Amino acid sequence: MDESALARIRIVLVEPAGPLNVGSVARVMKNMGLSQLILVNPQCDRQDESAIKMAVHGADILEAAQIVNELPEALTGCQRAIATTGRSRSLPTALEHPRIALPWLLETPSALIFGREDRGLSNDELNYAQRFVRIPSSPEYPSLNLAQSVAVCAAELYQQAIGIAGETPAIASPITTQTHVPTASLDQLEGYYQHLEQLLLEIGYIYPHTAARRLEKFRRLYNRAQLSTQEVAMLRGILTQMEWALSQGSGVDDRL
Amino acid sequence: MDESALARIRIVLVEPAGPLNVGSVARVMKNMGLSQLILVNPQCDRQDESAIKMAVHGADILEAAQIVNELPEALTGCQRAIATTGRSRSLPTALEHPRIALPWLLETPSALIFGREDRGLSNDELNYAQRFVRIPSSPEYPSLNLAQSVAVCAAELYQQAIGIAGETPAIASPITTQTHVPTASLDQLEGYYQHLEQLLLEIGYIYPHTAARRLEKFRRLYNRAQLSTQEVAMLRGILTQMEWALSQGSGVDDRL
Repeated sequence: MDESALARIRIVLVEPAGPLNVGSVARVMKNMGLSQLILVNPQCDRQDESAIKMAVHGADILEAAQIVNELPEALTGCQRAIATTGRSRSLPTALEHPRIALPWLLETPSALIFGREDRGLSNDELNYAQRFVRIPSSPEYPSLNLAQSVAVCAAELYQQAIGIAGETPAIASPITTQTHVPTASLDQLEGYYQHLEQLLLEIGYIYPHTAARRLEKFRRLYNRAQLSTQEVAMLRGILTQMEWALSQGSGVDDRL
Repeated sequence: MDESALARIRIVLVEPAGPLNVGSVARVMKNMGLSQLILVNPQCDRQDESAIKMAVHGADILEAAQIVNELPEALTGCQRAIATTGRSRSLPTALEHPRIALPWLLETPSALIFGREDRGLSNDELNYAQRFVRIPSSPEYPSLNLAQSVAVCAAELYQQAIGIAGETPAIASPITTQTHVPTASLDQLEGYYQHLEQLLLEIGYIYPHTAARRLEKFRRLYNRAQLSTQEVAMLRGILTQMEWALSQGSGVDDRL
């Protein structure tokens, strides 16, 4: 799957009434590699100043948007259509999770249909779709803004299209992905631990008989952080500077 | 995991300038079971008419939003913070996929930080976070609208919280598996960084004009390690002991 699959997906808005929404939809479509916007009997002007302002660099999508009178026209040439809805109403099939259903649109010319801001899609309109998705949301206030719904679905499509949809890309944990930066070798680390131990003994933070156990905690901490060579050098720099400061006696700061 | 985990997550907007955005954020937070909105030095009035209009039934979140002057205040009492960013810039760690990183916020009081509409978060601000996420988007136009970014992340959090995340819920990243041990709160960490800075200045390892930049490296290192409360206490113990040793003058070890 690649980004070109996104170019075949139409975002269909049925009777949108808010120019801010239509503009925001165009922007997030551009963000997510989508380009085909179809407006079914829009109740606002897509060239409204506020729509264009919200679209920012997605203004070209707004301008190229196709305008049709009825939903079926918007679906001409599509093989698959998914409708978004907040209510299960009289739907014959279950509402699906976007993550489960949306990838299905990436395989062939398809449409993703969004209803009116205030009352969604009619039953007749829902019947043009083969599958139905509902974005999970709080029962306390389930109704998402139109542009936000498009954003969530478009982001899902993009993630599925470029194939980093979840597990696969191998957990980029902050820890493992300190890429580029060369991790310190074990002997560099060992050198640091010994230097640290020596200073901690010197200042009386640890005592010879407890040193090993106390040091273990530091080893764990620093091992976990996967220090870079540069960081080990930095930490050793502090130790050296402290030793120097100690050798100068008290009130060291006055002399600096 | 359940919905109540969402109530502990703060959505932090740093210097938001658009009332429409702030209002939309409040709405989608309500949609997704989130309730704590914190505005850091907002550049617009959250009670602006257009903000309230966009918030619709999320107006209560807007009204209850806490306003603070600086990012650290917004993080008081949080144990985990993730910053959203579009650019990898000078970050030492990789940007993570929201799906991978965000579930980590559900386990403890946490914050999800969003930057300014026009230029995101500064490097200093990024340093308050332990992990960084980037919403995957098209290289052609990667920059999402602020409210859309919040929508995508909030929807992800909600889906993870209610556990219908698609296939496998909540990838346990290597980091989250530092189980049991309570992670230090962000203010404990901040206390340590300030103590460290003070001592490093005192011993002449850093100078006032370079302090911030040098300290940044330590912040990154220790943020990455996700210190436990006990470890922070241990590290501060060294600083205190070191100060004591300095105050005793040279040859400290002879007297121990």
